[in-house]
Amino acid sequence: MAKRGVKLDYAYCLEEVIGAQGLSAQDISGLAPQVARAHQRLGEQHQGGELGFMDLPGQSSELLDAILEQAARLSSIADDLVVLGIGGSALGATAVDMALKGALRYAQPAGPEGMRLFVADNSDPRFFGAMLDRVDLERTAFAVISKSGSTAETMSQFLVVKELLERRLGKKEALRRLVFITDPEKGNLRLIAKDEPVAIFGVPPNVGGRYSVLSPVGLLPLACAGHDVQALLEGAAAMAEACKSPELTKNPAYLLAALNVGFYRRGRNILVMMPYATDLFGLAQWFAQLWAESLGKAQALDGSTVNVGQTPVAAMGATDQHSQLQLYMEGPQDKLIMFLTLGNYGRDLSIPDLYPRIDALSYLGGRSLAELVQAEARATTAALASQGRPSYSLRLPGISPEVLGEVIYLLELATVMAGGLLKINPLDQPGVELSKKLSYGLMGRKGFEQEAKQMEALDAGDNYLV
Amino acid sequence: MAKRGVKLDYAYCLEEVIGAQGLSAQDISGLAPQVARAHQRLGEQHQGGELGFMDLPGQSSELLDAILEQAARLSSIADDLVVLGIGGSALGATAVDMALKGALRYAQPAGPEGMRLFVADNSDPRFFGAMLDRVDLERTAFAVISKSGSTAETMSQFLVVKELLERRLGKKEALRRLVFITDPEKGNLRLIAKDEPVAIFGVPPNVGGRYSVLSPVGLLPLACAGHDVQALLEGAAAMAEACKSPELTKNPAYLLAALNVGFYRRGRNILVMMPYATDLFGLAQWFAQLWAESLGKAQALDGSTVNVGQTPVAAMGATDQHSQLQLYMEGPQDKLIMFLTLGNYGRDLSIPDLYPRIDALSYLGGRSLAELVQAEARATTAALASQGRPSYSLRLPGISPEVLGEVIYLLELATVMAGGLLKINPLDQPGVELSKKLSYGLMGRKGFEQEAKQMEALDAGDNYLV
Repeated sequence: MAKRGVKLDYAYCLEEVIGAQGLSAQDISGLAPQVARAHQRLGEQHQGGELGFMDLPGQSSELLDAILEQAARLSSIADDLVVLGIGGSALGATAVDMALKGALRYAQPAGPEGMRLFVADNSDPRFFGAMLDRVDLERTAFAVISKSGSTAETMSQFLVVKELLERRLGKKEALRRLVFITDPEKGNLRLIAKDEPVAIFGVPPNVGGRYSVLSPVGLLPLACAGHDVQALLEGAAAMAEACKSPELTKNPAYLLAALNVGFYRRGRNILVMMPYATDLFGLAQWFAQLWAESLGKAQALDGSTVNVGQTPVAAMGATDQHSQLQLYMEGPQDKLIMFLTLGNYGRDLSIPDLYPRIDALSYLGGRSLAELVQAEARATTAALASQGRPSYSLRLPGISPEVLGEVIYLLELATVMAGGLLKINPLDQPGVELSKKLSYGLMGRKGFEQEAKQMEALDAGDNYLV
Repeated sequence: MAKRGVKLDYAYCLEEVIGAQGLSAQDISGLAPQVARAHQRLGEQHQGGELGFMDLPGQSSELLDAILEQAARLSSIADDLVVLGIGGSALGATAVDMALKGALRYAQPAGPEGMRLFVADNSDPRFFGAMLDRVDLERTAFAVISKSGSTAETMSQFLVVKELLERRLGKKEALRRLVFITDPEKGNLRLIAKDEPVAIFGVPPNVGGRYSVLSPVGLLPLACAGHDVQALLEGAAAMAEACKSPELTKNPAYLLAALNVGFYRRGRNILVMMPYATDLFGLAQWFAQLWAESLGKAQALDGSTVNVGQTPVAAMGATDQHSQLQLYMEGPQDKLIMFLTLGNYGRDLSIPDLYPRIDALSYLGGRSLAELVQAEARATTAALASQGRPSYSLRLPGISPEVLGEVIYLLELATVMAGGLLKINPLDQPGVELSKKLSYGLMGRKGFEQEAKQMEALDAGDNYLV
């Protein structure tokens, strides 16, 4: 069992450190029994077969072998993998790939370290068309990821790609370049795979899209991209182990959830995630989906109308010190900030002392870029604290598959705990149906004639155009 | 004079369309006199030499010629341009370059259409180191952008790069690959350029960083990248012309400001910008700085403590329908959404009817990806409206330099108008100083010994680590 490396530092959440805006010892101990109750319910749900994401760190080695084998097959025929998926089918793989290969990963061709991973997470033809331009169809594989097999964006892209591949390479070669990741039994992709031999992986039914990065949804693309998915799972397992305690201040996931909910109840309806590393921006976007879609709910479990939800914001340090920090320092007391800091950046650059006579430059000489960005992170969190602006930091020892596995599991568990504290269901997303149906109506899908009419009635036309 | 193409559709802000959460006719007419007064003050400020961004669309053709000449020189010796700049020195060029060359612009080498533009907007050595790995130093130019010439991140990167270039190519060739964009008279970059011959451009002193994209700060990098900067300015000029009226409902910038402030006063402390195009995500990040740093203020003009500011969130359609939409539909009534829709995506892909017997796919056959994404935008805005969730849309005819110039000017003017309505100064950023000074203290800069001590006192150590 790997040792947990990620730590939660919550000093700047506390009244005794930042003053009246912080939580008191009583506030924290007041949250403890709520957490303990929610912990029990989560345990019951898990035993009842829900919360499948908790089982992912311990997935069977057969499945992992099958994933690695498939990745090896795809790597042998293709340099690039295009993921056709959106939302939970896209964000996790992007987060891990960006973290490990860097924000500029597209600026070099695929190398021996694994396939280049493109993620077609929008139906926008300008973007998707450019993506198809960038790859060599003959040397590209496509992972179609949709649990239902009816996601409009993903399935449209699949239809476009399938025709392109067949025209260029013939049916047999086209099918070799496809892999489906979908429901283990039903849905349109299963239906298609009955007639046409396509490699296929199942997603456990009790693992929702936004909790699926450690299932084949994330693991297959990441294995193709050459990442150590075993290490990713080991990191998740280490964090799962560290998060077994029902005791609030001994369980980083529960504490993180309690801080967020505690501050939300005090009017902080915005939760900023600000990693001090450009390569972690994808992780912040992955978390934004997890937090928003899980907790933004109209109804509580008892059926009452609550309209809760804290709005996640993906920011980036040090960059956003020159963009959002002014607002965070002086604006309304409506935010809580989660910093992600790095103990080790994995590389560094020394700053030479080229202009010893210029004061504003000479202090930098002899230091390094890592020292500078780490000093900035410390200074920014402290500056906010000095103004009574609460924050906490996830201290990451560095960026590695293990660390990412830890962070992913930590945040997933924290999210369902927050759902427990808010007494809502963190696993569904009923609010997105109406927009889908209206869109079906507009696209003329059979059975959605009513929605087409509703759409007409809602359309405001050009009456208020300036 | 180019004709304005961008229109503001505000139907879904109105009580008569979306119900009680909307603004009534009285609400709007109540805002009109405030806008008229602020309009007058803005006019006085402009006449008094402030608000320099308003003069940028009409900049001298000599300056533009000098920029184009410099871009031609750099293009002749380099394939890639790296911008060393952060915040306002980075976001504008990124926004326009990403919009025109696409989110995947790094996935292909520089071509005849212009240099590849890298923007080093973080001091993170992992990111910046990777950037330096990706370029061929001999064929790379560097634009150092800092008004003061003392921005720690930018100047550190400059020192690193200058040494690298000198070692590899010698001093003379190193200097040829540099260009400074800074204060027209003072600052460290001017000082350096006195001794060492480096091409240099000035930024008008009355143009702050976040309003500077149409000055040499944005224009030089964009000209290097092969974009039509003249057309960008013409678009801005067309929008400036359309925004001359003091009448609220005839002036898109003023109306946009009034809607944002009107809803902010009703408790909507979050402003989402959601373009329905991946390539416009950089524009949303540029706007996030403009809005946050301009309006997030502790003090009003009269010295009273107000702590105002609406938090901008950069989202993306259709992608975030599978991420944030659940929260937008069902969460608290604390948001206003600005959609950016496209009349024309510039390219399209037809969806073939490969599986006529599968209902969930066959309706897509014969349609196109542009039709799908446009239907989704309409459906999502309508679905939100049906739940009394206000939004408005900027309707862009397409993505072009002219359109981007229009949008940039529109949003800059709307931001200063919003500052007028909120009675704060939208041009300063006093709140970021403390973090900078604490960071200087940590880095041992002379004269910041006091801050080093303050930093020690603020540091909470490892006392609250889980």
